[in-house]
Amino acid sequence: MKPRAVVLLSGGLDSTTLFYRLASEGYALHGLSVDYGQRHRKEMEFARRTAARLGAAYDIVDLTSVTHLLTTSALTNRAVEVPEGHYEAETMQLTVVPNRNALMLAAAFGVAASEGAVLVAAAVHSGDHAIYPDCRRDFIERFQAMQDASLGAHIELSTPYLDVDKVAIARDARRLGVPLADTWSCYRGGADHCGRCGTCVERAWAIAQAGIADPTVYEDPGYWRQVMEEPAVALS
Amino acid sequence: MKPRAVVLLSGGLDSTTLFYRLASEGYALHGLSVDYGQRHRKEMEFARRTAARLGAAYDIVDLTSVTHLLTTSALTNRAVEVPEGHYEAETMQLTVVPNRNALMLAAAFGVAASEGAVLVAAAVHSGDHAIYPDCRRDFIERFQAMQDASLGAHIELSTPYLDVDKVAIARDARRLGVPLADTWSCYRGGADHCGRCGTCVERAWAIAQAGIADPTVYEDPGYWRQVMEEPAVALS
Repeated sequence: MKPRAVVLLSGGLDSTTLFYRLASEGYALHGLSVDYGQRHRKEMEFARRTAARLGAAYDIVDLTSVTHLLTTSALTNRAVEVPEGHYEAETMQLTVVPNRNALMLAAAFGVAASEGAVLVAAAVHSGDHAIYPDCRRDFIERFQAMQDASLGAHIELSTPYLDVDKVAIARDARRLGVPLADTWSCYRGGADHCGRCGTCVERAWAIAQAGIADPTVYEDPGYWRQVMEEPAVALS
Repeated sequence: MKPRAVVLLSGGLDSTTLFYRLASEGYALHGLSVDYGQRHRKEMEFARRTAARLGAAYDIVDLTSVTHLLTTSALTNRAVEVPEGHYEAETMQLTVVPNRNALMLAAAFGVAASEGAVLVAAAVHSGDHAIYPDCRRDFIERFQAMQDASLGAHIELSTPYLDVDKVAIARDARRLGVPLADTWSCYRGGADHCGRCGTCVERAWAIAQAGIADPTVYEDPGYWRQVMEEPAVALS
């Protein structure tokens, strides 16, 4: 029987690539999307599709009752505008949901423990280190130590992209044959990717850097070049 | 302005006493009950009442969508009978919700971070150490270390009852003038405490050991003496 892995699967480029990677490594997969009150559920439709395509289990964990108490974040508070530009911009601080990774991982480890999984995986990467303390190695190592004590058993926390950036993930996606058109990154939930929000800019940049012809339809396909070549635009 | 503390407040004897203790120490309190799919919501009514009495904020955090995935526990799976007897009995393993404290504390720290609280408190005590790894000092210390890394800031995890048993908590309740009749322990959600489930037995025993006249109405008021004096009864 295949060893079982629980994967935080948002439906974006990073976690979808991670999902394909673990499938290729022979794990029986259980994808978990976390509903923390995102402005839209579009990502989750893509996550569900990915899980179905790979014959994996899939569930949505509803943490909205926690995050509705976390009133400071742009992602969960619809009164706050989603900032444009790239992640380095100070305004992106608004997209921080306090303690989000701890919450999502604690849920994933509970599920993993209850179904005898050997591994929990998350697609944190170095591009998130600057703003998000809960995407850094120090956090990941301490979380693992905490989980070992919590469960009185070892379930591995796997974060294979921890020390690489989104470009390396895009290259891994190419290697694994991940259908990029079936991943969703945009913070806004329009018919197509907007091309202007932080995740769109980062996505388009990473795919281009990886030398892949980007199949994504962006409403504003040229914006990311402007931002990445002239950061002052985003910061003005 | 008073420093703010977020407290996991189930409505039981332990957390209610902790709530009174922190109020007496001058904190502005925010009580959080966690709905993890308990068989009844009676505890939460008591928690809400306690918070109201002390002029504290109060919220229920709904984690049922996580715990419905955790199918092994008697607390969340109504098809499994609640075992009788005291906690040491092996059957009480059934009442373990995997990773429950990690989940509840991660939620509490998210709330604490978002509202500028300086402290998160939980009423774990030594009586829970034998069965629950996530009630032991090792877990608590690693959880604090993880949270410091997660938030990039220190919010104290306070567990003043970590090294003492429920008798010491009952004594603290007496010292603080906690109205014991306004706390609820029974796993079953009847009109009165059943007197036979693990928490009822432990409650009645601790209150008696602390030399307090127990105001609790038990359906079977003598059962706890039988169990605590002759453990074979519970194990048969």
